[in-house]
Amino acid sequence: MNGLNMSIRLRRTPYTNRVEKLGVSGFSIVNHMLLPKAFKSSVEEDYWHLREHVQIWDVSCQRQVEIEGPDAQKLVQLMTPRNIARASIGDCLYIPLIDENAGLINDPVLLKLSKDKFWLSIADSDVLLYAKGLAIGSKFDVKISEPDVYPLAVQGPKAENLLSEIFGSHVKEIKFFKFGWIDINGSKQVIARSGYSRQGGFEIYLKGKDYANFLWDVIWDVGQSYQIAPGCPNLIERIEGGLFSYGNEMTLANNPFEIGFEKFCDLDGPTQYIGKSKLQEIRANGVQKIIRGFVFGKTPCPSCSEPWPVFVDGKVVGNITSAIWSPRLKANVAQGMVDKDYWDIGQNVKIKVQDGTEMIGMIKDFPL
Amino acid sequence: MNGLNMSIRLRRTPYTNRVEKLGVSGFSIVNHMLLPKAFKSSVEEDYWHLREHVQIWDVSCQRQVEIEGPDAQKLVQLMTPRNIARASIGDCLYIPLIDENAGLINDPVLLKLSKDKFWLSIADSDVLLYAKGLAIGSKFDVKISEPDVYPLAVQGPKAENLLSEIFGSHVKEIKFFKFGWIDINGSKQVIARSGYSRQGGFEIYLKGKDYANFLWDVIWDVGQSYQIAPGCPNLIERIEGGLFSYGNEMTLANNPFEIGFEKFCDLDGPTQYIGKSKLQEIRANGVQKIIRGFVFGKTPCPSCSEPWPVFVDGKVVGNITSAIWSPRLKANVAQGMVDKDYWDIGQNVKIKVQDGTEMIGMIKDFPL
Repeated sequence: MNGLNMSIRLRRTPYTNRVEKLGVSGFSIVNHMLLPKAFKSSVEEDYWHLREHVQIWDVSCQRQVEIEGPDAQKLVQLMTPRNIARASIGDCLYIPLIDENAGLINDPVLLKLSKDKFWLSIADSDVLLYAKGLAIGSKFDVKISEPDVYPLAVQGPKAENLLSEIFGSHVKEIKFFKFGWIDINGSKQVIARSGYSRQGGFEIYLKGKDYANFLWDVIWDVGQSYQIAPGCPNLIERIEGGLFSYGNEMTLANNPFEIGFEKFCDLDGPTQYIGKSKLQEIRANGVQKIIRGFVFGKTPCPSCSEPWPVFVDGKVVGNITSAIWSPRLKANVAQGMVDKDYWDIGQNVKIKVQDGTEMIGMIKDFPL
Repeated sequence: MNGLNMSIRLRRTPYTNRVEKLGVSGFSIVNHMLLPKAFKSSVEEDYWHLREHVQIWDVSCQRQVEIEGPDAQKLVQLMTPRNIARASIGDCLYIPLIDENAGLINDPVLLKLSKDKFWLSIADSDVLLYAKGLAIGSKFDVKISEPDVYPLAVQGPKAENLLSEIFGSHVKEIKFFKFGWIDINGSKQVIARSGYSRQGGFEIYLKGKDYANFLWDVIWDVGQSYQIAPGCPNLIERIEGGLFSYGNEMTLANNPFEIGFEKFCDLDGPTQYIGKSKLQEIRANGVQKIIRGFVFGKTPCPSCSEPWPVFVDGKVVGNITSAIWSPRLKANVAQGMVDKDYWDIGQNVKIKVQDGTEMIGMIKDFPL
């Protein structure tokens, strides 16, 4: 294992003390902030646990970009090909952001807090700076900031019962990708039925770091009877579930079609946004590659920290971007890009993993 | 030591294989890329070595934001309070970037490559996205990209002799914060007399990752007779030398006056840039705090990963943002912010370090 050299720049979260007490042993960095990625148990143990019980995840690194003011909706719409005109207060919307070349800038979840106030709950790129640049250049009347908000995820099939025991049964009424409100120590806080797993659960958008210890502790204490464990986005689970990661599966070099985001793109409607004509041009010329799932190999692959070539008949036809051994499938699972002539489900492939080993596999539909 | 969980998102550099062979044991993340931060030797050993010999540093994470086109100079000027009108081709300029509130967005080095082509060699924030937003909003005629450039630093008093032995004596003619050109395996490459240390040296802005192994190996091989060692920005040396780090010493919450950047701000001249009126307003109202050096304690402090309070007469008057034991001064050295009534050189202070220990010290001028 490689070490992470700490500094203030790699920002701690209000929950870092808690995850340290619980034996966190590895982090990633997202939005200049610590994301716990390893505890005492293995990724496999965490995987089985997440599918059966409930976990508490410090996902403070999902920073919010707050856009508020008379031009807020106009600015958000400019950044995404998804039509947000009919979004209601209380909605969460997954909105890919693209630049003038239709390259992906981020894939945040949009929370509409009021008519003219939005949060973008972002993946790993400085959307704050992009939004600021756009607003300044366009002379929009908006205020853009990173509020003092620290998301905490509670994921797994027991999350609903746990949180309704703590915060009240109205939590059960919150629908998927909607948010409501709970009382935390006298403060009113956003809670959404969402999260970076396919096992169900919630994300609490805690505003004010002073409430963090209280929130963590009450969930942890009440969670004991639900077999709660500390956790983090689980690589096996997210790969199998077809949840993609900005910076891994997609970058500025990818367009939305390549990631299967066409359903979020208003291509023929009236929505005005940056990159629209480029998107139409790409559609007209035909998409050249697409993201797919893979199942391959009979022994665990090494961890994936650079793209692995995918071969068909000795020819490189794509790249693996995330991969790990699935104990359930007893094979490796992966996500990656494949060129159009080879992207059919069922296509046989050969994958050259990081240590040079070649493994036989197949393109599969999500969930794997 | 905490672990770093690797993924493609934490981008490897073309030199990562080389630093791994040399026993890298710790990284930081800057601009979504690995920055080697620890080798087999200690920070203290590296410090003494850097002051006497020469080191090779993988600083690929100093990503370039390339701005090219008829409006390139206009866009760069809009982003920085420093007047760049008289910059010549071959100049490196340290240019703080600020937003509409005069908050610091980054503190890159600007390289003027031609009349309408610039590189911003950035610290840790996505200046690419900010520049894109501004350009799109302002309808500027520019192309903005992250080119395939991987800076390699050669730092220390023997750097000049080493590099002129390899690339020719014209390297010696390059003045401080100017750049010239060298031939690397048939390619023409930028080399600047610059770098993130006070020990002298150069940064090679290698374009094209295919040349990386060749470049690293020739410097390493010829460097043997100069006692070359692998290294990285040295925390002791940079704190003593008064080199600040974006994300540690300064963030969007700081204005240029607080970092001693007034000399880079054209406040009364004709230069037009974002945040100018706000800067004038701050000057009129008076600066409230400023960055200072500190020397404190008789035993090594822990490593600094959250702000440490600075006390005068029991009152919190500032924060330490970076600190480490200096084997030369036999005391801890630090950088941090102090409120205006307490910012004089020679002010006695008490510092509460991360484990709760209180240490006695003094505000000092850079270099410490």
